[in-house]
Amino acid sequence: MTTQLDSAILLISCPDAQGLVCAVTEFILKYGGNIVDLEQHVDREENVFFMRLEWDLAQFSLPREQISESFHQLVGQKRHMAFQLFFSRDVPRMAVFVSKTSHCLFDILSRYQSGQWKVDIPLVVSNHEDLRTLVENHGIKFVFMDMNNMSKAEAEEQQLKILKEHKVNFIVLARYMQILSANFIDHYPNRVINIHHSFLPAFAGAKPYHNAYERGVKIIGATSHYVTSELDAGPIIEQDVVHVRHSDSIQDLVRKGQDNEKVVLSRAIYHHLNRAVLVHNNRTLVFS
Amino acid sequence: MTTQLDSAILLISCPDAQGLVCAVTEFILKYGGNIVDLEQHVDREENVFFMRLEWDLAQFSLPREQISESFHQLVGQKRHMAFQLFFSRDVPRMAVFVSKTSHCLFDILSRYQSGQWKVDIPLVVSNHEDLRTLVENHGIKFVFMDMNNMSKAEAEEQQLKILKEHKVNFIVLARYMQILSANFIDHYPNRVINIHHSFLPAFAGAKPYHNAYERGVKIIGATSHYVTSELDAGPIIEQDVVHVRHSDSIQDLVRKGQDNEKVVLSRAIYHHLNRAVLVHNNRTLVFS
Amino acid sequence: MTTQLDSAILLISCPDAQGLVCAVTEFILKYGGNIVDLEQHVDREENVFFMRLEWDLAQFSLPREQISESFHQLVGQKRHMAFQLFFSRDVPRMAVFVSKTSHCLFDILSRYQSGQWKVDIPLVVSNHEDLRTLVENHGIKFVFMDMNNMSKAEAEEQQLKILKEHKVNFIVLARYMQILSANFIDHYPNRVINIHHSFLPAFAGAKPYHNAYERGVKIIGATSHYVTSELDAGPIIEQDVVHVRHSDSIQDLVRKGQDNEKVVLSRAIYHHLNRAVLVHNNRTLVFS
Amino acid sequence: MTTQLDSAILLISCPDAQGLVCAVTEFILKYGGNIVDLEQHVDREENVFFMRLEWDLAQFSLPREQISESFHQLVGQKRHMAFQLFFSRDVPRMAVFVSKTSHCLFDILSRYQSGQWKVDIPLVVSNHEDLRTLVENHGIKFVFMDMNNMSKAEAEEQQLKILKEHKVNFIVLARYMQILSANFIDHYPNRVINIHHSFLPAFAGAKPYHNAYERGVKIIGATSHYVTSELDAGPIIEQDVVHVRHSDSIQDLVRKGQDNEKVVLSRAIYHHLNRAVLVHNNRTLVFS
Repeated sequence: MTTQLDSAILLISCPDAQGLVCAVTEFILKYGGNIVDLEQHVDREENVFFMRLEWDLAQFSLPREQISESFHQLVGQKRHMAFQLFFSRDVPRMAVFVSKTSHCLFDILSRYQSGQWKVDIPLVVSNHEDLRTLVENHGIKFVFMDMNNMSKAEAEEQQLKILKEHKVNFIVLARYMQILSANFIDHYPNRVINIHHSFLPAFAGAKPYHNAYERGVKIIGATSHYVTSELDAGPIIEQDVVHVRHSDSIQDLVRKGQDNEKVVLSRAIYHHLNRAVLVHNNRTLVFS
Repeated sequence: MTTQLDSAILLISCPDAQGLVCAVTEFILKYGGNIVDLEQHVDREENVFFMRLEWDLAQFSLPREQISESFHQLVGQKRHMAFQLFFSRDVPRMAVFVSKTSHCLFDILSRYQSGQWKVDIPLVVSNHEDLRTLVENHGIKFVFMDMNNMSKAEAEEQQLKILKEHKVNFIVLARYMQILSANFIDHYPNRVINIHHSFLPAFAGAKPYHNAYERGVKIIGATSHYVTSELDAGPIIEQDVVHVRHSDSIQDLVRKGQDNEKVVLSRAIYHHLNRAVLVHNNRTLVFS
Repeated sequence: MTTQLDSAILLISCPDAQGLVCAVTEFILKYGGNIVDLEQHVDREENVFFMRLEWDLAQFSLPREQISESFHQLVGQKRHMAFQLFFSRDVPRMAVFVSKTSHCLFDILSRYQSGQWKVDIPLVVSNHEDLRTLVENHGIKFVFMDMNNMSKAEAEEQQLKILKEHKVNFIVLARYMQILSANFIDHYPNRVINIHHSFLPAFAGAKPYHNAYERGVKIIGATSHYVTSELDAGPIIEQDVVHVRHSDSIQDLVRKGQDNEKVVLSRAIYHHLNRAVLVHNNRTLVFS
Repeated sequence: MTTQLDSAILLISCPDAQGLVCAVTEFILKYGGNIVDLEQHVDREENVFFMRLEWDLAQFSLPREQISESFHQLVGQKRHMAFQLFFSRDVPRMAVFVSKTSHCLFDILSRYQSGQWKVDIPLVVSNHEDLRTLVENHGIKFVFMDMNNMSKAEAEEQQLKILKEHKVNFIVLARYMQILSANFIDHYPNRVINIHHSFLPAFAGAKPYHNAYERGVKIIGATSHYVTSELDAGPIIEQDVVHVRHSDSIQDLVRKGQDNEKVVLSRAIYHHLNRAVLVHNNRTLVFS
């Protein structure tokens, strides 16, 4: 559903009722908008309606800055809609947090440089110096945080400051080996994306490949999720697996797993950049 | 998207234009229908709009027999819509054509007996007697066609007659080793589902596993498609693959491939039963 | 590696040392055996050597009944080898335990009837009557155990007796909804194969699809393992997954999952029938 | 089977016969070698024996430079063995050919820089200047060939010269958009690895994603193979696929496909670096 249009995107959730799609699409039609993509879903367990709608702004007669208020007045308010409005021309600003491992960062930089993603990466933050050259070679600021010489609280305070200065919209933990505090996460709710190297909920915590080896599983996985205050328990955006066998050592699991990790993380980032992810009750809807 | 509701389903295609979703959903709302599922797609290469819409008939005030005409008058006509209307309470009648190989037939009978599918199977047609007992044990009529004692034209004439008598809506070729004539297929356009044991368009024709072995591929596939007059070239409904390696003999390819074939065929049947498949320009849209 | 030969199979494990492959293959050569398949693996963490060896008996000059003792004397003893010897002409006898759900049983019967597997199925045991006709139609004895009118201990005693009478070699739990006692399992160590409908170790216990739905995972799995006294914790033989998305209801997970379950279970049975599975420290080696 | 040992690797093929494994392993034992990995396969259609053997050289009493001759005299000659001998300490030298597309090159550089692969990359050759900075930032020589100002024959002559100067062992075409001449390929038989963006033999030639879109397939693939003089027809090393659906545009196929391409190519390179690939009759054996 990749588009190069100047479009607006609505992510909507509300109690299910008759006429919701009709009401929303009438609003778009009223101002001459042309729908590019529409996906809806009703959660029948909880009777909640969800929708992602993207429309072309070329002929849309309502100015951007009035859309949100107008939609709320005409459509959303009486139906108790929660909604988010995005414009495709607004390029999201993403910070990447890394430690020493480079495979996910390389994958991100590959897409960044080739223009596959519509994203700005103003900075990469790390608790190690190892990846500085790689980052700077791509013209991205590298921020080293010396965790040995400051408290976690101090480090996070500095991080939040610099993220704010660089107008960062969301954060990707690309195999970042530090646990973020609940306070930090509260500043970026559903906007910190992590990659965990197991098919969660199996093998949460450290050393999942070692645990997988010991358990003798025949598949290993990777899970990309939004970070919440509970470790490895946030809403899952994307998962995939690779097959392994008895002849694979732990080193083989790591090697095979890394190919999976980077692809799973990059798919999750892609969905987030597309404003295709809605979080509800610690689960995601990924429209695609 | 499995539902147990008494619902109606519309499959729509028309030239793309503004306000299509709005117009269709307004029609549903006007008579008090509640949308259960809605999926739309716009083919931007050809500027064609497609939609699958399912709505609950419980509160719908328009009688079933008037829906089609009314929709045409109020919505479809002026927008040049082609549409098909189905009711979930109408259980499709499926004939299965087999030869000697049983794995796909077993898979179909398994789903039939367990009630996983909403389908009636009035008869199984075969050019061999081998699977008679299996079929009759499930209370299904078994029709043997002795191809050695009649021409293909005679056989097909008899088949068409018996299919008509049993009010068959669509046909599944579950590894049926005879080629149907263009005349036969014309009686069931986009209503004959075949399983071919390769990832088409590779290895069309006979002996795909032998050809795959000789080419030394590392994956083998299966393809379920609607049958057209051009062999193995009809619109693809579902495909999947399994990995193989050099140690796999042709017999291993057959064994691994059969597991894939039966699952791919059954998924295609499921989509067809759900009225989730739309054919356009020899390609399918599978709404799911 | 499917073969139709009259062959012998050795599964060997021992402390790793120099010259093990040489010593074993020398033994085969000494009596004129022709190796059909050889796979070895060394666990470098624990320094244990594993091997599966299959050789053609056509020209083998040592009588079957002397092979085991002779191999022990000439090769195994001094190297502290544990080994199992099988003959391809000995067709394993398998009992299937079921409850009400039929998809795995159908899949097993499909392979049984088509001759895909070299196996005898003398009986199917169930705590429900539902699947009697299906089983008896395939000429297999159906044993109903009325769990409401006897204690679990009594039931298992009867089961063990009847399994012994029918010379059953191993048992398959094809979605059998009863937990076997440690005592029962002790009679069939690494010879009771279960299918669990999740990617273990995630979602052990009852209702894995419900738990998967609640956690919002994007993949669901199935795991076939040997049953041990600890629930869902035995050595894993085979695993696979299918992708799901937010639009899938719990019923959709069940439907998609069942296709996965039956294939995973049947692959595990196939490996077991091939004498391709070695258990070590609650993990399996699957030679293939 | 990743090892950090100082080891030797033999790739062997010969007419099948009794005692082959025994003879080879006896040779290793005779000089005190410890087998690290052994995999064998017999092609029963053609009666050919294949083997990959890796052994630890730590205690091996035969000097490296005598192994080949000694093995030939003692084991290979009388059994008509063709064999290749490698030493793990010899780091292969790989040249990468690219055009403008960077995703495969990024993936290769990621593994190169992290030390995941035991490989030297002395140079990257390109018919475009686009990727110069990326390459040079990794300390690798970038060679631009201006195809507009020289004939193909001249270009290849220069390429062969520079490859020789840099002692290149094998070449990877990482989405290189030029066709190599038969003469060029003859200099590197089974040592030029290409990535083709389809599941060959389907969609050979240019624009496979466009062709896949037009055919309406539900899976797209990637194939890594050794280059032969017949386009896209060389022995396949690795293949994999991704699922697509009707809502995916050609651009989506490209995006999804690129993730597949880079992983498939890198897996093929990994196998080649491991000396795990044997070519026979235009098919590969990949020991792993």
